[in-house]
Amino acid sequence: MKKPLILVSNDDGITAPGIRHLVEIMHQLGAEVVVVAPDSPQSGMGHAITIGHPLRLTKNPVFGPDIEAYECSGTPADCVKIAKHYVLKGRNPDLVVSGINHGSNASVNVLYSGTMSAAIEGAIEGLPAIGFSLCEYGPQADFSHVAEWVERICRHALDHGVPAGTALNVNIPKKSAEPIAGLRLARQARAKWQEEFDRRLDPYERPYYWLIGSFVNLDHGTDTDEWALANNYVSVVPCQFDLTAIHGLAHLNEHWQLPLPEPAQVGAPPQPVPSGDYGPATQS
Amino acid sequence: MKKPLILVSNDDGITAPGIRHLVEIMHQLGAEVVVVAPDSPQSGMGHAITIGHPLRLTKNPVFGPDIEAYECSGTPADCVKIAKHYVLKGRNPDLVVSGINHGSNASVNVLYSGTMSAAIEGAIEGLPAIGFSLCEYGPQADFSHVAEWVERICRHALDHGVPAGTALNVNIPKKSAEPIAGLRLARQARAKWQEEFDRRLDPYERPYYWLIGSFVNLDHGTDTDEWALANNYVSVVPCQFDLTAIHGLAHLNEHWQLPLPEPAQVGAPPQPVPSGDYGPATQS
Repeated sequence: MKKPLILVSNDDGITAPGIRHLVEIMHQLGAEVVVVAPDSPQSGMGHAITIGHPLRLTKNPVFGPDIEAYECSGTPADCVKIAKHYVLKGRNPDLVVSGINHGSNASVNVLYSGTMSAAIEGAIEGLPAIGFSLCEYGPQADFSHVAEWVERICRHALDHGVPAGTALNVNIPKKSAEPIAGLRLARQARAKWQEEFDRRLDPYERPYYWLIGSFVNLDHGTDTDEWALANNYVSVVPCQFDLTAIHGLAHLNEHWQLPLPEPAQVGAPPQPVPSGDYGPATQS
Repeated sequence: MKKPLILVSNDDGITAPGIRHLVEIMHQLGAEVVVVAPDSPQSGMGHAITIGHPLRLTKNPVFGPDIEAYECSGTPADCVKIAKHYVLKGRNPDLVVSGINHGSNASVNVLYSGTMSAAIEGAIEGLPAIGFSLCEYGPQADFSHVAEWVERICRHALDHGVPAGTALNVNIPKKSAEPIAGLRLARQARAKWQEEFDRRLDPYERPYYWLIGSFVNLDHGTDTDEWALANNYVSVVPCQFDLTAIHGLAHLNEHWQLPLPEPAQVGAPPQPVPSGDYGPATQS
């Protein structure tokens, strides 16, 4: 079997323990591994891209002679773009993986997540893509239980593909005395951050504000990622980048009473993006 | 009727012409207007938030004595958070509006858009929220045709609400000789950026890279935002922040053959977030 090509990125930066674990697991899978990761922590960067200034890209031997690795001055989404369109010179990775993030990206956190933005950027390119996160913060996080799950999920992705038009959001419970209970496909839990701003004064008596908050799960379902994680399961949510809310189209058609020229055409469910084969493209 | 409270933000920064137009239109609607907008351009920031350093927030009289306005050192999402949880001291805006962006946020651009991240942040808070964008870049963009559409859409949102769990992505065609053809509810077009990196050398012979690209519409549907804009319609897409791909859950259940403890429970369509009334919350 041909050696698969796997692109690795993350949002905690190229020196984070989490990406080192991920690179090792991909290497042990027998893949050709190429890493393009941020040169500094990019947590909370969401799907930001760099358009106002140029990027730097520097080869970094941090993972040894077998792994072609680069640090990039941009965001996680930038890293995947420059990997796809510059570093790999047109070769398509068989898999894009991002992480392993230090901290959960379940439920609404997916929106703020740099880890998942790298994976979703891969999905936009039509590539199978997965973001991995461990539900433990900090550089001392214990990754000793994650390898078997990450490896298994990546093998499944290489063998069976990832659903078209999605990237998988995989979250792994923090290490505990109990072994992981299993893996659950799940939907994104309805949740939010209950936030506050901590106002302080700097030495010059000018105010500044720290964002602080506590996570609130508003969802009582047992089919959510939060339920899975709370019950010691690995959660897998396929995430789409088509944000169209079909229920929202129906609501607006019914309640807004706008003069719509051809309302019958509106609201057909969007088709998933086929991987790789788009047919003739229209330039606009 | 009680004066509605409208929160205004954007991603081009508090001094951009686009937000000045939006503030004026909201003021003419008879609303109490509060502005919290970035102190510098934040285009392409996606749903980034600031967690590694604190925020600054400064009152700015740029919109005159009738408008309470602040500039904030953070991202568009930060602006909405600090507005909701600090500036407004618990008052809920009747509407959150963001923009008017200088440039299209249709189709896949919604993911990179700071304008839409401010609106989606409002939606996560359970507030009716709309992002407005004009399909013309640059500080000289002609906004003379937008007021009637922005006003009309905001009146509809105040009167009829916005679908639960969504923020509206409104894009307005560039001014042309023809009047706007109307307004169309639409889905997000399947599209991507065909990207390249322009490699240059700095004066010290070190390479740097500019992201350049051309937009490619891969979608032949006539019910998309790109179709609407190309045909001189204002496009309105309700965007959800629940990224769960239902078709992806079905695909994984079928093809991944994982040992799933209770597969029958997985894949129920997610319920939209009810605005404001969540019922008892679970803290996790």
